[in-house]
Amino acid sequence: MSCAPTKNKADYTLYLVTDRTLMTTDTLEQAVSQAIDGGCSIIQLREKDAYSRAFYETACRLRSLTRARNVPLIINDRLDIALACGADGVHLGQKDLPCKAARAILGKDFLIGVSAATVEEAVQAEADGADYLGVGAMHVTATKTNTRPVTPLLLSQIKSAVSIPVVAIGGINEHNIGELQNTGIDGVAVVSAILSQPDIQKAAQLLRQKAEELFHG
Amino acid sequence: MSCAPTKNKADYTLYLVTDRTLMTTDTLEQAVSQAIDGGCSIIQLREKDAYSRAFYETACRLRSLTRARNVPLIINDRLDIALACGADGVHLGQKDLPCKAARAILGKDFLIGVSAATVEEAVQAEADGADYLGVGAMHVTATKTNTRPVTPLLLSQIKSAVSIPVVAIGGINEHNIGELQNTGIDGVAVVSAILSQPDIQKAAQLLRQKAEELFHG
Repeated sequence: MSCAPTKNKADYTLYLVTDRTLMTTDTLEQAVSQAIDGGCSIIQLREKDAYSRAFYETACRLRSLTRARNVPLIINDRLDIALACGADGVHLGQKDLPCKAARAILGKDFLIGVSAATVEEAVQAEADGADYLGVGAMHVTATKTNTRPVTPLLLSQIKSAVSIPVVAIGGINEHNIGELQNTGIDGVAVVSAILSQPDIQKAAQLLRQKAEELFHG
Repeated sequence: MSCAPTKNKADYTLYLVTDRTLMTTDTLEQAVSQAIDGGCSIIQLREKDAYSRAFYETACRLRSLTRARNVPLIINDRLDIALACGADGVHLGQKDLPCKAARAILGKDFLIGVSAATVEEAVQAEADGADYLGVGAMHVTATKTNTRPVTPLLLSQIKSAVSIPVVAIGGINEHNIGELQNTGIDGVAVVSAILSQPDIQKAAQLLRQKAEELFHG
């Protein structure tokens, strides 16, 4: 089986998901740039309320920035915007386009991530062609209020049930990241633990260091 | 130049744009089926508030229905859903993905419609690869409240400025459709004048008859 370079090289250790509503810096590009400086290894652009044109324009700006830094760019939900801006992949929630339908459009070289909260969803996503899983929410958060938390035990069961990388998401920060030790996961996805911090680069650095120790130590 | 059969055959005389919030029938499929019975020649699925998964599932159901009736299906805004459900085309507003970016993804055989309210937007859309234009709003409507009406004179100027089909949209009904006589346009797009009527088929029949007389008489 042949894979595109991005798919092979993707480093899930510290995965940043954007959320403009939580930001304190002037622009998303500044925030993402500082997060990469601090050690974020993959960026997901998430824009839930933007018009498609504005979403596309933001995606194009982040594409330039992430390409220059050699960091993969993933677009949340919108396959069309991912294609239009030349992103490396798309992340699909359970209420987004089915993974199988997305894979049929995108071909094998495009990175597809899928959100999963149960072993069943995880196994199904892998069978449908997902390249990695975002599993959570680990904690109830401001960005995801309608979900029941995934326990570290369930997280490790999900990781054991699939052979693709697993990233934990949902309310993870420097204080609670230790709970994820020995779950076997490949990294953590964070939003506010980086984006709402006064020093984004420093916050990312601290999380990167802890994530390295926990997942690759 | 070679075109796909759908692009050549598209009949814009009576173009239905869906809107669930204006419907009185049980399901969108019933409404669309009755509208086709009455003479609607092209269907645009417009879902502004649905999750992608629900939008996709609706699109797949309408794809089956419209294919069986040999009527083109256009998806509003969401190129990815258009591709995933096998639609004939996509309709892009001025706040949606740029036509040029959409054309680059879709190739030449996919039908792309673009909304235009000025001669400049119309000419630009044609230059960017649009196959037809939706021009309006002709009247301020419940579905589009933030636009200045396009006059019949401006509509005819837009039609003269481009060589692609032009469909007028926005508050058009059996009482005011006569204003569009001699504008040179190819058809009318309607929402509530069909979907909110107690007898959808009859409403479509009446509009079809008037549109035939006005635009092909």
